[in-house]
Amino acid sequence: MSTAQDRTQEQDLPYNVFARVCPSRGTLEHITGRWGALTVGALYEGSLRFNELRRRVDGVSEKMLSQTLQALERDGLVHREAQPTNPPRVDYELTPLGREVAGRLLALIHCVEGRMDDVLAARAAYDARRA
Amino acid sequence: MSTAQDRTQEQDLPYNVFARVCPSRGTLEHITGRWGALTVGALYEGSLRFNELRRRVDGVSEKMLSQTLQALERDGLVHREAQPTNPPRVDYELTPLGREVAGRLLALIHCVEGRMDDVLAARAAYDARRA
Repeated sequence: MSTAQDRTQEQDLPYNVFARVCPSRGTLEHITGRWGALTVGALYEGSLRFNELRRRVDGVSEKMLSQTLQALERDGLVHREAQPTNPPRVDYELTPLGREVAGRLLALIHCVEGRMDDVLAARAAYDARRA
Repeated sequence: MSTAQDRTQEQDLPYNVFARVCPSRGTLEHITGRWGALTVGALYEGSLRFNELRRRVDGVSEKMLSQTLQALERDGLVHREAQPTNPPRVDYELTPLGREVAGRLLALIHCVEGRMDDVLAARAAYDARRA
């Protein structure tokens, strides 16, 4: 029941997240995964050092944050800058491509945050029907 | 290093996905999770029956699709309509709230699909630096 416009968009684009083998599905997961979304969202505010980022992304482990940042760096969304200081200081920031994607993600996050009253009301009604 | 605007937005909103205990984090995960994003994206095109949806979300198991739909229904994003036919027919469609969220998600998905050439070039450069 897709519209003509949807079908055209899919045919025009060589990448399609709905296809299991398309690499765009992995990149979408890096951006929207549990820690990826919060990391990208935090970096939208400006560059951060690893420990600053870890405090901002409340609940993430050091290992998971490292893995998340590495996947985002490999996809060209995050730039890692090691300063030649002692001890070494490492800053992370979004690339222009990362900022483009992050803008869309933040719009989604703000939409969800702004509609949570409705979500919680729906949850209460759902649970009441099943109680 | 957040801007004044970011801080104002966070103070104004009672919900904040960056806080570990905020329920908005769970809802964001239902929408952006591996199968949640594809399910919401597929339903943006129109209502679908369970098996149609399963074919569209290439690679999802019956169990994972059921769990995904249940979480989205509980959050008030998806409406489940059982027709009184024999055999029973069950249709799923986005609620108005679900459509609002899905629009933001689709903008993100199309942005990612549209920039995959750049992502793949970044991956190749990253791997070459480490080879």
